[in-house]
Amino acid sequence: MSDPFVVVGGDAAGLSAASKCLRTDPDRDVVVFEKGEWISYAHCGTPYFVKGEVDRLEDLLSLSPAEADERGIDLRRGHAVVAVDTDARTVTVEAGGTTFEQPYGDLLIATGAHAVSEPIEGSSLDGVFTLHGLDHAAAIRAYLTPPDEFDVESLGGGDPLDESVAEHYGAMTPPETVAVVGAGYVGVEMVEAFDAWDVDIHLFQRSGRPVPAFGEAVGDAVTEHLRESGVTLHFGEEVARLDGADGHVQRVVCESGSELAVDAALVGIGIAPNTDLLEGTPVELGESGAVATDACGRTSVEDVYAAGDVAEMSHVVTGEPTWGPLGLPANRAGRAIGATVGGDQTPVGPVAGTAMVKAFDLECGRTGILDRDRAREAGFDLVSETITAGSRSGYYPGAAETTVTLTADRDTGRLLGGSIVGTDRAAIRIDTVATALGADLTVAELERQDLGYAPPFSPVWDPVLVAAKVLNGSLE
Amino acid sequence: MSDPFVVVGGDAAGLSAASKCLRTDPDRDVVVFEKGEWISYAHCGTPYFVKGEVDRLEDLLSLSPAEADERGIDLRRGHAVVAVDTDARTVTVEAGGTTFEQPYGDLLIATGAHAVSEPIEGSSLDGVFTLHGLDHAAAIRAYLTPPDEFDVESLGGGDPLDESVAEHYGAMTPPETVAVVGAGYVGVEMVEAFDAWDVDIHLFQRSGRPVPAFGEAVGDAVTEHLRESGVTLHFGEEVARLDGADGHVQRVVCESGSELAVDAALVGIGIAPNTDLLEGTPVELGESGAVATDACGRTSVEDVYAAGDVAEMSHVVTGEPTWGPLGLPANRAGRAIGATVGGDQTPVGPVAGTAMVKAFDLECGRTGILDRDRAREAGFDLVSETITAGSRSGYYPGAAETTVTLTADRDTGRLLGGSIVGTDRAAIRIDTVATALGADLTVAELERQDLGYAPPFSPVWDPVLVAAKVLNGSLE
Repeated sequence: MSDPFVVVGGDAAGLSAASKCLRTDPDRDVVVFEKGEWISYAHCGTPYFVKGEVDRLEDLLSLSPAEADERGIDLRRGHAVVAVDTDARTVTVEAGGTTFEQPYGDLLIATGAHAVSEPIEGSSLDGVFTLHGLDHAAAIRAYLTPPDEFDVESLGGGDPLDESVAEHYGAMTPPETVAVVGAGYVGVEMVEAFDAWDVDIHLFQRSGRPVPAFGEAVGDAVTEHLRESGVTLHFGEEVARLDGADGHVQRVVCESGSELAVDAALVGIGIAPNTDLLEGTPVELGESGAVATDACGRTSVEDVYAAGDVAEMSHVVTGEPTWGPLGLPANRAGRAIGATVGGDQTPVGPVAGTAMVKAFDLECGRTGILDRDRAREAGFDLVSETITAGSRSGYYPGAAETTVTLTADRDTGRLLGGSIVGTDRAAIRIDTVATALGADLTVAELERQDLGYAPPFSPVWDPVLVAAKVLNGSLE
Repeated sequence: MSDPFVVVGGDAAGLSAASKCLRTDPDRDVVVFEKGEWISYAHCGTPYFVKGEVDRLEDLLSLSPAEADERGIDLRRGHAVVAVDTDARTVTVEAGGTTFEQPYGDLLIATGAHAVSEPIEGSSLDGVFTLHGLDHAAAIRAYLTPPDEFDVESLGGGDPLDESVAEHYGAMTPPETVAVVGAGYVGVEMVEAFDAWDVDIHLFQRSGRPVPAFGEAVGDAVTEHLRESGVTLHFGEEVARLDGADGHVQRVVCESGSELAVDAALVGIGIAPNTDLLEGTPVELGESGAVATDACGRTSVEDVYAAGDVAEMSHVVTGEPTWGPLGLPANRAGRAIGATVGGDQTPVGPVAGTAMVKAFDLECGRTGILDRDRAREAGFDLVSETITAGSRSGYYPGAAETTVTLTADRDTGRLLGGSIVGTDRAAIRIDTVATALGADLTVAELERQDLGYAPPFSPVWDPVLVAAKVLNGSLE
């Protein structure tokens, strides 16, 4: 009997791998160490829990410990892996005050990422949050709830919930003014969440546009929509620090010297891979700082894999390693590694950085390479066109303006990426572009795709096809 | 100066070709002969005009005669081309009681298709319609409108409208019971249109399921939804004839002998290409009966092209000629032929038979090959899987069941087709499958596409990916 498949981290990638390994090889021993109490929860759902659209924290769990047990996974919560010895093929585990060595046959590093807040001085003040994990989400909703209406049970967290933190914030007078620092997708989603609680929202963004990964056209549309929704925008303002009184945040101070009195702050300025565990091991990191992996998710060390927010994957356009922590690639890579470890070698597949974000009524999508400099680094001369077309036939009720950007390489006409924004079935159309990208199509080929048409759902020329037509015209 | 580019038919394919030819070569003479008065109207929008969601017939016109003129098109309405002489390179045109010969340099046959009703005896009775053309749509809505509310101006048809027919039906007591004969997409859309007028609807379908081109899973879902919506379904019933009294339809009589008293009937049992004009010419028809064309829309005769509902195109999966009259391919082929005639040779592109249809709240989509026999003829051993998954993350409000069928070739794993049905952004997801099909992906490759994920729009594994995962599993 070989040593077990040891998985470090009980979230999307880790538990997908564990589950798939056992489906592929039911006799394999699979041990998952999770340092915290929560497993397999939907990060992307947390803004909607804060907003109140999702009622209970439990609703965000896609796998319960009992279900993991049914699948045959030896799940150990509250077990922190503190060291890896790739020569001895063991990990060191701390749990309940004791430490032990666990041998592994195969090892998966699925330790995820953490929210970065260090650049903002004062981030540890009371009333400052990063929305990374369910305890953070619970604390924010507790704070937003008037104390006389607060009940820790209503958070629906069950055993894993850190009740003391939730109770602390639940007892406080709700904030009237909130600063959201960073207008990436977490920032934008949290603006919508705060807005549901009728607080005064100030959104700070160092650059001039929100959701920069989605490109200029989406950024401009989101800017306008946020402003119309009553959010005060501080774009081009870099937050220097958060000042407090009695340990609680009280003021946002910008590099420009401008100040704003606030009761709470959400810092969403980025995340970084949790690679500390690998320091001093021969497991190599990539240029991005995340773990370097091959087509099957293997690291530089035999039988050691990495997946999810801690790992690089291969970019579908450049073929180069890229780090873009997103939900589907984490699940997909975990699942593929589980199959491989179980004996059915399976590629993790490339990533395109396809993402969607909702900003109030706006649906946004992006995929591939939108940035000219990034394209140049990869050897492409990026050409871009942006069009606005209807989401349905113009005469059909509900047709809404849909703005599509497509990018291509000037020399080869190869599609490089795209973005989309609108209010009617806009985000989901990015999947058409992502598929065209994954299949290596040129813009001319995309223009000739036989997409669907029916007045209530799409005009004769879908906005994606209109964009392809225009971009193809400018490539000729 | 060469002889003009002569286009026969002033609808989607014809006017797309004329417009594109002039954009490509502004000096070219382009003449379009349209035998009727309407040009460039949205066939697919007519059910929504009957329903009343689209207010005026004019709203369905995508190009007005004045706009055609601005583009430099010599548009002649009320001009019927009655003969083609490919040796003399002329067409014979009848207009206003006179006949003349028009020489052509290039010729496009874009005569469209006509609704088939002959198999149903009694189809010419008063109160029987086929919904092919705006005059039919106007007549139906006029009939549904109570006489004291009827006003021919409110139809918004302008000059081209045949007012006498509209006035005839506008003066009649609205029907209480309507038979819809044929449950293809026109039949299903018309059921929804009639339902808005609060009539008793009976839907007859020879086979056991509606929208057979969409496959079994969609057919079953539509059946259930139509029944829940109060439509009386007569599936597996072949209509033999329509009986009348005083020239008006009075009864539907089925082959089984069963009868139903009705006040009106809509016959939607199919359409056929308008090829009469080509009888006796060397322009070859394909096996389907539509005009055979090559990759650039050329017929068997030099400088003679065909596009739109009258022409075959190449199927993206089989590479064989296929006839599938749909809006986008008509527009796309017309546009490509216009470019080619203008000097910029452009392929019309293959078709996948991608289609969408709305049935009350249900959104349906289909693409490629769903039928086992059809696949076998093309040399494929069709394997199919059908799954049901959520349209959004399960915890997000509004997540709806979405049923996806994917088909593949057993030997190669190549994707052959797909269908989808659901109530939340379902139809538009068929574009992902259509693009994968157009790019020749295998099911394994489709499974690895990096599609978007955000709780409000799509779960981590989009229903299309779930279907690919399951089908890929059954192929292994």
